[in-house]
Amino acid sequence: MSAFDSVLNEIKFDANGLVPAVAQDAATGAVLMTAWMNRDAVIETLESKNVVYWSRSRQARWRKGETSGHTQKLVALYVDCDGDTLLLKVHQIGPACHTGHDSCFYREVGDDGTLADT
Amino acid sequence: MSAFDSVLNEIKFDANGLVPAVAQDAATGAVLMTAWMNRDAVIETLESKNVVYWSRSRQARWRKGETSGHTQKLVALYVDCDGDTLLLKVHQIGPACHTGHDSCFYREVGDDGTLADT
Repeated sequence: MSAFDSVLNEIKFDANGLVPAVAQDAATGAVLMTAWMNRDAVIETLESKNVVYWSRSRQARWRKGETSGHTQKLVALYVDCDGDTLLLKVHQIGPACHTGHDSCFYREVGDDGTLADT
Repeated sequence: MSAFDSVLNEIKFDANGLVPAVAQDAATGAVLMTAWMNRDAVIETLESKNVVYWSRSRQARWRKGETSGHTQKLVALYVDCDGDTLLLKVHQIGPACHTGHDSCFYREVGDDGTLADT
């Protein structure tokens, strides 16, 4: 049981118990990253207001910024129409990307059809 | 072979040959929806500048807006740091969501811990 059962019931976790989450900077509107959450990550994020993901590579809870200090403070959480994707509006401390870029989406397809840093 | 081979080589399609894509309104910054693309959808989107997804439920190419008229014109395409998510900045014609909402993310967790339309 969780205080957020009604929300959790609207989320369609996949066969691995995960749902993708898009993190967006609440102030600038920039899309920062996408990652995965399990049920516990959603609950902890809603309770603590610090964004927590599930790391598929490490198969472990991933408290964003726990080692880097680049935490994400939850501003608002949205569930999409069919309940299979979350949108997190966040206050991002420091860069969101492990490369040091503000956003993980720093590579753009240019007019010449190749990918280049923005 | 495609003119976009260098971009395609940077995209990590999953075991089903798919990659998630986040569509963002290029003008307002609103996150509109997420959906999936396969290799052919990425190529057609880049060539035509009309966004094409892959429908997992129908197992078919999904030219966004083909029946509704609510097309997405591609403004820019980004690949994230580890190549497993795309960000599409688009010019959205009409509502992005099949429910008639501008964005699929129209349900927000409120202060009382329940989900409500925004």
